[in-house]
Amino acid sequence: MTDCIFCKIVKGEVPSYKVYEDNKCLAFMDIFPKNEGHTLVIPKKHYEIITDAPDDVIKDVIVITKKLAKAVKEATNCDGFVISNNNGKHGGQEVPHIHFHIIPRFKEDGLKYTWPAKKFSEDQFRQSADRIKSKL
Amino acid sequence: MTDCIFCKIVKGEVPSYKVYEDNKCLAFMDIFPKNEGHTLVIPKKHYEIITDAPDDVIKDVIVITKKLAKAVKEATNCDGFVISNNNGKHGGQEVPHIHFHIIPRFKEDGLKYTWPAKKFSEDQFRQSADRIKSKL
Repeated sequence: MTDCIFCKIVKGEVPSYKVYEDNKCLAFMDIFPKNEGHTLVIPKKHYEIITDAPDDVIKDVIVITKKLAKAVKEATNCDGFVISNNNGKHGGQEVPHIHFHIIPRFKEDGLKYTWPAKKFSEDQFRQSADRIKSKL
Repeated sequence: MTDCIFCKIVKGEVPSYKVYEDNKCLAFMDIFPKNEGHTLVIPKKHYEIITDAPDDVIKDVIVITKKLAKAVKEATNCDGFVISNNNGKHGGQEVPHIHFHIIPRFKEDGLKYTWPAKKFSEDQFRQSADRIKSKL
């Protein structure tokens, strides 16, 4: 897509710190890293969110994400890592081209989860599950 | 695995609000939901973190996660959603059996990202990328 920064990175029109490339996927350093080694994996073809892409594209991306996660872990000696994929502006997605973050985590990195768990009744859980099942 | 709560859910020894099941994967409501509709997708077979599992298992899980994400979005009318997979205790993983979260996000849900981006020099980015490439 003409205006997409990640498409421009794929085409080489915008520079990036690449770590992996094949016919279908590209991985490069996030320039707004949450920790050292923060890497992004994208499909080369433009899709906005995960549900827009065919299964095969997502399979390719997750296999490369897994491969990269192993390398990121070894390279950074992190104590854990997060893989995340934000979808939609209100889902925290900043570039509307599917991307998977690999974020190394360290014991003392001070990053906290501040999303409190909500309390639901059994009925609410059952209704949620039923509503989702009805959409499958 | 005997002590694993998710393995017990798979076997039906612990109750859950199931939304999807096939031979290889199971999806159920997270009982500590960050928002209504928060769903977990797991492989039935026990693996601790994503890099422990064969590619085929992860492909199955991501395809079902994508399928469920679409249903969760339709069921909750969310404005966006997050897919995340935490690995290791220090990566925020609370149950040591691979799981993918699907967390619906809403415009006014008040959930904030509080992980500040770090500043790195060009050299630091290049060195990070080189270290990761060397592990591939």
